[in-house]
Amino acid sequence: MPQIQTLARPTTWLEMPRLSEQLGAHVTLAAETFQYTGSFKFRAAYHLARNVPQTKIIAASSGNYGQALAYACQLLDKQAIIVMPQTSAQVKIDAVRAYGARADLIDVHTVSRATRVAQLAAEHPDAYVASAYDDPLVIAGNASLGAELARFTPAFDFILAPIGGGGLSAGIIQGLRAQGNPTPVVGAEPLLGNDAARSLRAGEIVANEREPQTIADGARTLSIGKHNWAILRDGIHSIVETPDEQIAQGVRLLFTYANLKVEPTGALAIGALLTQPETFRRKRVCCVISGGNVDARVYAEILTG
Amino acid sequence: MPQIQTLARPTTWLEMPRLSEQLGAHVTLAAETFQYTGSFKFRAAYHLARNVPQTKIIAASSGNYGQALAYACQLLDKQAIIVMPQTSAQVKIDAVRAYGARADLIDVHTVSRATRVAQLAAEHPDAYVASAYDDPLVIAGNASLGAELARFTPAFDFILAPIGGGGLSAGIIQGLRAQGNPTPVVGAEPLLGNDAARSLRAGEIVANEREPQTIADGARTLSIGKHNWAILRDGIHSIVETPDEQIAQGVRLLFTYANLKVEPTGALAIGALLTQPETFRRKRVCCVISGGNVDARVYAEILTG
Repeated sequence: MPQIQTLARPTTWLEMPRLSEQLGAHVTLAAETFQYTGSFKFRAAYHLARNVPQTKIIAASSGNYGQALAYACQLLDKQAIIVMPQTSAQVKIDAVRAYGARADLIDVHTVSRATRVAQLAAEHPDAYVASAYDDPLVIAGNASLGAELARFTPAFDFILAPIGGGGLSAGIIQGLRAQGNPTPVVGAEPLLGNDAARSLRAGEIVANEREPQTIADGARTLSIGKHNWAILRDGIHSIVETPDEQIAQGVRLLFTYANLKVEPTGALAIGALLTQPETFRRKRVCCVISGGNVDARVYAEILTG
Repeated sequence: MPQIQTLARPTTWLEMPRLSEQLGAHVTLAAETFQYTGSFKFRAAYHLARNVPQTKIIAASSGNYGQALAYACQLLDKQAIIVMPQTSAQVKIDAVRAYGARADLIDVHTVSRATRVAQLAAEHPDAYVASAYDDPLVIAGNASLGAELARFTPAFDFILAPIGGGGLSAGIIQGLRAQGNPTPVVGAEPLLGNDAARSLRAGEIVANEREPQTIADGARTLSIGKHNWAILRDGIHSIVETPDEQIAQGVRLLFTYANLKVEPTGALAIGALLTQPETFRRKRVCCVISGGNVDARVYAEILTG
């Protein structure tokens, strides 16, 4: 596999004895909260923006992918147009703009994201339309994290990673396997949007009927991407369907025992460990913490809730 | 690779472009929030506990030093007795106990910490009584951070560090100078407990009349330690007297633009930068983030306040 060229920062490894004690496993955190733009999405966004010939990139994202793509394009002197619901948190709209991108705000009751992206693509035929998770370039960018996980010694018994559209888990698996590393990867999916788990059981992609209302807003996807599914269907060890309550508890445990600020989606792996502790008891488990961007008010509510 | 080790962890370097932009300076964070027990205090505590011959150590601390000493003693198979007000946050009492130490809870209206420590010292003549900040071993332990700061390239124009009892800033200066590094160190002190700034002006140690009620609870000291003063009086560049409002704003900026959870004392350096921006404009500034341990409720109030 060709060396992936990326400006992405290496992940931040954290081993917190009291967190491990609370979780009954030897837990290593791979925190992407200090990645550029605050989430792993920068890995994918930069790799994609660098490797497509177009100088204009359109994407729909109310969250981390939008910020990541905006910053990647700023670094590469390209132009990003990010379609976002006008109800997105102001801090997220501001961030996209701060990175020099155009935030295209839509009323989702009038026009769907997909329709608006199609309109923009027609207006800008020279633009590349970038999926947030279903693109081989996204998987390849995220594989840089898999490569880092593969180099960690001693090897983990399990790697637990959030699963939404599947780009992160597919990338991690691709990156690990490219290094000849067989560590099982377990997906941590919100129970409220458990399409990936249902897909695994069905042996084919099963979609949610509508956007799941889990607090893990980074995993509010309708279904797994096709490119990701090709890797996940045989590549993923299993999926833990994680209730929102455990996700919130994960946020609190990371706050208290690891001094780590995470967004709810970033706590999915910890929530999965809380949901299915017997699988991981006394094992060496790497929990991938996907990102840290969360509104102060939402975070304060989770902390005190 | 972060193997669990008994020596202090290296600091966590973070450079967050949007934080720098907000602050008008090129800011590098040296975060001690992921240090063992969540603050720089472990550096001092471990160095002290390892280098005194006694196997029993007594200290008064309601905060980070207590946890740090408890954990250091646990690692070194020594016994720690930590005097704490019975009104201390339960999470702090629990932490001290979780690290295997005895938490000696006192009613501060009935007996002072100093009196209780003296009582315990009389009961345990074989014990070492450890100051949280005024001990050459504390300074030497904290100097390990100064040595790390000295090795950072390119060199900083300024290093901003919290100042309470002065053990951290004195240690940083000692560590830097031992490496031949002349970078000016600026103290960030709460305005509400500005005895260090007043001491510098007076040319001698000036004490607060009572414990200052700043939100930066790690800097609620009556005065600078004598050993620290010997280093600081000529060694520190200057002190920024930082209002609590700027400290709280520092907590929020670190939350929003660095995904970093800090305790109020940990945000003192950022607060100082906000208080006196002209000194640091466009300079390369290292802000030492001393620790991350804060109650969820206090933190939530600062975030939404």
